Amino acid sequence: MNFVEVIARKRDGSELSAEDIQTFVRGAASGQLPDEQLAAMLMAVCIRGASRAETQGLVEAMRDSGALWKTGESFPDAVDKHSTGGVGDTVSLVFAPLVAACSVPVVMMAGAGLGHTQGTLDKLAAIPGFRTAGSRAEAFDRLARCGAFFAAQSQEIAPADRKLYLLRDVTATVPSLPLIVASIMSKKLAVGARHLVLDVKCGSGAFCKTLDEARALAEALVAVGEGAGVAVAAMITDMSQPLGDRLGCANEVRAAVEVLGGGGDARLRQLSVELATDALAASGRPRAAALAEIERRLADGSALARYGDIVRAHGGDPDVARLPRPRRTVPVSAPCDGFVAAVEAEVLGWIAVGLGAGRQRQGDQVDLAAGVKVHVRTGDRVEAGQPLATLEIGERRVDADSLAARTAAAFRIADERPAAVPLVIARLGGAA
Amino acid sequence: MNFVEVIARKRDGSELSAEDIQTFVRGAASGQLPDEQLAAMLMAVCIRGASRAETQGLVEAMRDSGALWKTGESFPDAVDKHSTGGVGDTVSLVFAPLVAACSVPVVMMAGAGLGHTQGTLDKLAAIPGFRTAGSRAEAFDRLARCGAFFAAQSQEIAPADRKLYLLRDVTATVPSLPLIVASIMSKKLAVGARHLVLDVKCGSGAFCKTLDEARALAEALVAVGEGAGVAVAAMITDMSQPLGDRLGCANEVRAAVEVLGGGGDARLRQLSVELATDALAASGRPRAAALAEIERRLADGSALARYGDIVRAHGGDPDVARLPRPRRTVPVSAPCDGFVAAVEAEVLGWIAVGLGAGRQRQGDQVDLAAGVKVHVRTGDRVEAGQPLATLEIGERRVDADSLAARTAAAFRIADERPAAVPLVIARLGGAA
Repeated sequence: MNFVEVIARKRDGSELSAEDIQTFVRGAASGQLPDEQLAAMLMAVCIRGASRAETQGLVEAMRDSGALWKTGESFPDAVDKHSTGGVGDTVSLVFAPLVAACSVPVVMMAGAGLGHTQGTLDKLAAIPGFRTAGSRAEAFDRLARCGAFFAAQSQEIAPADRKLYLLRDVTATVPSLPLIVASIMSKKLAVGARHLVLDVKCGSGAFCKTLDEARALAEALVAVGEGAGVAVAAMITDMSQPLGDRLGCANEVRAAVEVLGGGGDARLRQLSVELATDALAASGRPRAAALAEIERRLADGSALARYGDIVRAHGGDPDVARLPRPRRTVPVSAPCDGFVAAVEAEVLGWIAVGLGAGRQRQGDQVDLAAGVKVHVRTGDRVEAGQPLATLEIGERRVDADSLAARTAAAFRIADERPAAVPLVIARLGGAA
Repeated sequence: MNFVEVIARKRDGSELSAEDIQTFVRGAASGQLPDEQLAAMLMAVCIRGASRAETQGLVEAMRDSGALWKTGESFPDAVDKHSTGGVGDTVSLVFAPLVAACSVPVVMMAGAGLGHTQGTLDKLAAIPGFRTAGSRAEAFDRLARCGAFFAAQSQEIAPADRKLYLLRDVTATVPSLPLIVASIMSKKLAVGARHLVLDVKCGSGAFCKTLDEARALAEALVAVGEGAGVAVAAMITDMSQPLGDRLGCANEVRAAVEVLGGGGDARLRQLSVELATDALAASGRPRAAALAEIERRLADGSALARYGDIVRAHGGDPDVARLPRPRRTVPVSAPCDGFVAAVEAEVLGWIAVGLGAGRQRQGDQVDLAAGVKVHVRTGDRVEAGQPLATLEIGERRVDADSLAARTAAAFRIADERPAAVPLVIARLGGAA
């Protein structure tokens, strides 16, 4: 087949056949199609979109471009979790031990952070000795031993996605619904858990700025998962302010441990419990019983104990006293009395990156100790001089005054209390 | 400037600034922008289109990516001619001596053929000893000596176009009006004649299949030329059947010489005269006087003599007896009585390519002696057994039976005489 003709069909808005899509994806994975042809096709898809059938074909071809771990064959109840990425969102580190403590195996493919959000891989790097699973055998061993594994995105999983992802980054074809869906779902399907819980973030700190965008993405993810025989439960959740009250790698590990111990940030706890409930419901438990068990595991110390088991199974030391600590802190105070009208999640995310807690460019070094503590939330009453946030500075040299000024500006103070936004905005798919 | 942001603007349908376009074109010419970014931009332009201002900016940036010959400064009356490409169209070889014989200097940048049409460069190669001008100095010398030059597309002219043209070919971004206009006009403007006559072909054998397409292309070409200070006269002409009655390299040289000698194919002669009249009118002559002079030059032998001068100035031998001749011929006859309802120009063009008269792929060797003679035209009455065409076979081994069958099928015979289509369908721009 002449690939130029395939590109021309998508350019003209025609629907591609399964064979067309396979030619594209196989050519991307094998390197037989040159980058300029892949780029032209990506732009055509980005502008013309893709039908449900095309998206499904794309996901499945990308899934099949590498190894299939078939996790569900060995662990039928295993659940995978994905978030589209938010600020102060360390749910993965709560979810895995909590759900595993409820006897549901948890699959975690962790990514490195890029842009204004931290990646789970970077947070795990703050735990002394922690080593992610490198192979299917290692991952399955950890799953059998402690009910969860954390693995770095493997080279063998969906290589077509890796190739296309790098090209999308330089060709302005990142914001394409079918390409985003294909990138997320191809990897999930290749790992092969039969249950998937999704957290689609919505708001100023998220990739989806509007509810319409978030809903379209969530619907497409659910449809593609179910089309491939995976049960998917999705939530659309608020990312107009940071989820938890800590940003940064070591910081977010501490925040997760606090929730696992029965305390911690209320919003981080709420979302972790909601997603864990979906996970337990996916393997057939009634929601009320699932919720009761989850609350019990948080209260009786077994979730926290499981965190210790999982960290040790990955070679790490679960003692939070051994996490990196900031060298110094800089408080940021309210300039006036009023109500917190907004806490700009993306701005705070970039401030954390500025402190060294994230990456502006692929390959940047992350400062594990750096971060931000957020002391007030949208809707809170504040008085002039009251602390809004604390900058936590690690080894990196930073312009603290400038970052403090930018941090203060991320908190909008108004005379009236703003309308409350629910944390869970909508639910799609999932068990009753 | 981050080029990803420029691509994103075009992806989203925004108008690019002059600076955006220069970043694109300079990056293409210098090799500083990678092929995948250029390809993504080309596809975005192909789908989103370009405004008149963007198209003008693109043309001028591409013009300025290489050397500027500024022909008009040394030869203010010099005229350039461009055709969008047709079958049996050897007007360039008539036009140059005919117009030069009327004391108007003629600029000819000749291209190699690709696909179903023959290129002027290939036809010139059939003339023993002919050597195209290689540099501006050589071209201007020939212009001064004999009133015309033929040059191969120079490496130094519009290098951004060469880069983008090769990429378009493999990325399904050839059929884009602004990109086509930019490719044609950037080279014309870089050579820098102040007058341009254009022949935009329309019909089954042409790139523009419909009159709407041809009109849009002609209007854009005229607008861009005039925007850059060049007087442009454009015709839209019929390419639903071959223009002349010969296809193939040596064949089309013979056809041109016949017209220059006062005889030859009527349609080839008519279009050559029309375009030559536009060329003379461009430098200020009244059309009636221009036409009278052109007819006189054809009748009195001075056009043919000028052909000899031009060929000799390029090192060639103008004696048509020395042109390559076919090794054997295969007649193709009418299967039934009736009227010729259609002579499929593109089909005949591909048959000529099959005989070796053109290239299917860049780099293919051309058989200069091979070609097709067409004996009947749309609207002609034919009887069963009457010759429709003759295949002229050169050195290449071909399946003559199969080609003859395909040739017969290119002539549609019907019971009723079809409606006549005028050769010149419309005119745009140009002097009164």
